[in-house]
Amino acid sequence: MRKVNILEIIEKKRDKQELSKEEIEYFITGYTSGEIADYQASALIMAIYLNGMTKQETTNLTIAMAHSGEMLDLSVLNEVIVDKHSTGGVGDKVSLILLPLVASLGIPVAKMSGRGLGFTGGTVDKLESIPGYQTGINIHNFVENVEKVGISMISQTLNLAPADKKIYSLRDSISCVESIPLIASSIMSKKIASGAQKIVLDVTCGSGAFMHSQERAEELAKEMIEIGRLADKETVCVLTNMDEPLGYAVGNTLEVIEAIECLKGNMPEDVKEVVLELGAYMVKLAGKGNDIEANKLQLLENIQNGKGYQKFIQLVENQDGDSSYIKDTSRFEKAQYIEKIYSNQTGYIKRMDAKEIGKIVCDLGAGRIRKEDSIDNAVGIVLHKKVSNKVDKQEALATIYANSKEKLEEAKKRLLEVIQIDENVVSKPKMILEIMQ
Amino acid sequence: MRKVNILEIIEKKRDKQELSKEEIEYFITGYTSGEIADYQASALIMAIYLNGMTKQETTNLTIAMAHSGEMLDLSVLNEVIVDKHSTGGVGDKVSLILLPLVASLGIPVAKMSGRGLGFTGGTVDKLESIPGYQTGINIHNFVENVEKVGISMISQTLNLAPADKKIYSLRDSISCVESIPLIASSIMSKKIASGAQKIVLDVTCGSGAFMHSQERAEELAKEMIEIGRLADKETVCVLTNMDEPLGYAVGNTLEVIEAIECLKGNMPEDVKEVVLELGAYMVKLAGKGNDIEANKLQLLENIQNGKGYQKFIQLVENQDGDSSYIKDTSRFEKAQYIEKIYSNQTGYIKRMDAKEIGKIVCDLGAGRIRKEDSIDNAVGIVLHKKVSNKVDKQEALATIYANSKEKLEEAKKRLLEVIQIDENVVSKPKMILEIMQ
Repeated sequence: MRKVNILEIIEKKRDKQELSKEEIEYFITGYTSGEIADYQASALIMAIYLNGMTKQETTNLTIAMAHSGEMLDLSVLNEVIVDKHSTGGVGDKVSLILLPLVASLGIPVAKMSGRGLGFTGGTVDKLESIPGYQTGINIHNFVENVEKVGISMISQTLNLAPADKKIYSLRDSISCVESIPLIASSIMSKKIASGAQKIVLDVTCGSGAFMHSQERAEELAKEMIEIGRLADKETVCVLTNMDEPLGYAVGNTLEVIEAIECLKGNMPEDVKEVVLELGAYMVKLAGKGNDIEANKLQLLENIQNGKGYQKFIQLVENQDGDSSYIKDTSRFEKAQYIEKIYSNQTGYIKRMDAKEIGKIVCDLGAGRIRKEDSIDNAVGIVLHKKVSNKVDKQEALATIYANSKEKLEEAKKRLLEVIQIDENVVSKPKMILEIMQ
Repeated sequence: MRKVNILEIIEKKRDKQELSKEEIEYFITGYTSGEIADYQASALIMAIYLNGMTKQETTNLTIAMAHSGEMLDLSVLNEVIVDKHSTGGVGDKVSLILLPLVASLGIPVAKMSGRGLGFTGGTVDKLESIPGYQTGINIHNFVENVEKVGISMISQTLNLAPADKKIYSLRDSISCVESIPLIASSIMSKKIASGAQKIVLDVTCGSGAFMHSQERAEELAKEMIEIGRLADKETVCVLTNMDEPLGYAVGNTLEVIEAIECLKGNMPEDVKEVVLELGAYMVKLAGKGNDIEANKLQLLENIQNGKGYQKFIQLVENQDGDSSYIKDTSRFEKAQYIEKIYSNQTGYIKRMDAKEIGKIVCDLGAGRIRKEDSIDNAVGIVLHKKVSNKVDKQEALATIYANSKEKLEEAKKRLLEVIQIDENVVSKPKMILEIMQ
């Protein structure tokens, strides 16, 4: 066989030709080992960005990235492991509610999550705001936990898909983030490496998401479903609305408290729709029920009978978290400054840009600008209104939780600008935009 | 003014937008200083390769690269300095003949040349095959030489256009060489930095040139003329045929000997056409005659009366070269093995691929694979036939000059394969394809 060479690989993609499996593997292996230089990877990535990739190329890239590091083998569990992943959003506490709920139906959940970066939060950060909760446990204990209580949620303790990490960080520094084949292969490579057999994806769509339009979200979903098909990992995508934050709370501790309330049955309508839809498909993929509406009823039942909530307590206790905080959320450490902002007119909430709110919360100290930044779990925003709600003049719009007077004032000013109110009635936004499978 | 940033510059070019002068200058300054990383430059260059550049962008890039290092100021000479440059070819000894000839008409010649790389030769290498000839002299002496004898030919002793050097070498390692705006700006930036006021370009076209088709050569010429116009450096492009080697000799010493013969009046037809055409335009741009045909006659006269030859002797002696070699070319050191190859059929020479012949000579030791390689001046090939010539069975086709028996045999075998002979009459190729100005 002729030897592959990186110059020819770049040239082929530059000239819109399809790369072979062998060429893609050569690139991923060489780039992971450092044999292929950053500047060569960079040229190839820009060529991929501009000239695209076929579905087969994207799948080969995904699989090569998945195999660039450790691979988690969950077959010891002897069960179909369904993974859930969100493409990111603001106020997205879905995993905290959904996964214990699914586990409470006897479906095993083995979930590795990421940390937040920029204006979107990460599930690991939220879990770590529970005093004592250990996210960095080893794989042996992780699997043991799943066997013992049916659920474990940890951070990425394995060296999963290092090629993806390297390429992701390169893309970030060469303006090549928003590329469908690159986003799709990045997400799917991590899922495959972390042992998922079936995958339910929450493809967020709107101002607070990677994909701003439904059209782009559909493209991404299509690509991921096709990768799943070619890689033999059945994948369902639920396209959800991310124009305003999900639920009312944004900020780590505040979102954990909201998630606990949800598990106790006090679920905001938008959170409920998303949790039930994603959950129903997880149940289906796990082989525990083909009727989506029936699955939703099962899930709802375990909210009402408290089994989902109990599973959450079990999860927390099993990972050394102090469950007294869950049982009495007033115990969580509070921010120093808690102040409301008020509407200066009567009308209907027209728009609350998720990305802008995410940025305000990030600047309050809840988010990271760089990976190594430490974060403040107590700060954030709790909205009192959602899009379409009526609001009276002088009525509270939101409460801001801050640990600095200066940041509080800045956040108040910015949040008031972000919340748009209209005289006319505004219709309730649709949460579930589309199911693709 | 808003601060420029490399991510936004990459993004703009990625999205096919036009970069401003300020943005291009920021990139060139930052990349030259090392502040902008190779991998960022690499992404931008691939985006330029794929999305192109407007004429204004290419000109701004050219001027920014020209100003990235030292700039030679030839205004002290108080004369219009016309530079001549070739986009590269095989057997291209034109500068050695043309420049002394033009200087013999009283037109000052201040020429900095490059070394060869790959299968194309460089004028500096050819000059250095004359024992004693100094190419690395300082700028003060360079200018003094022009004032004293009307001509100086040296290597690039200044730090000219370092940004171009850096970008050129990057392009080479990311498969981004064949891009019209990048080739055009690379050539023109060096011309502008080396003090040219007017420029005559020999844009070679064919198998032994950068540009394989006349269409691509026209595009490149158009781009360079436009840069010249916008940068106020009048530029004329002569598109010449480079399908077979120019003249009969390929190899440094062999080409110097052929050039001397040319200056003595024994000029192969193809060399003569190219020398006279380029020379006539140099005379015109120098303001010494608008009638191209009359200019050619002036040049021919100085071949016939020996003034061009005398100027070459003067140039060599003035730069410490041993002119006894010029006066008696049998003094040049000869290769150890000198053997002919013979035709095994009767017919007409149909094709002698310039690139393939260039590669054979390179492998005989006359060329560099890497910049730091040393070269063997004595080796090479002298053709006895050119395309369209009749050849009899057993008649000599070429003589090979080698310094290793093994390389000799290899070259004989390869050269016989490269020379294509046809039964039918083959017409003489046109040398001057087009004049663009």
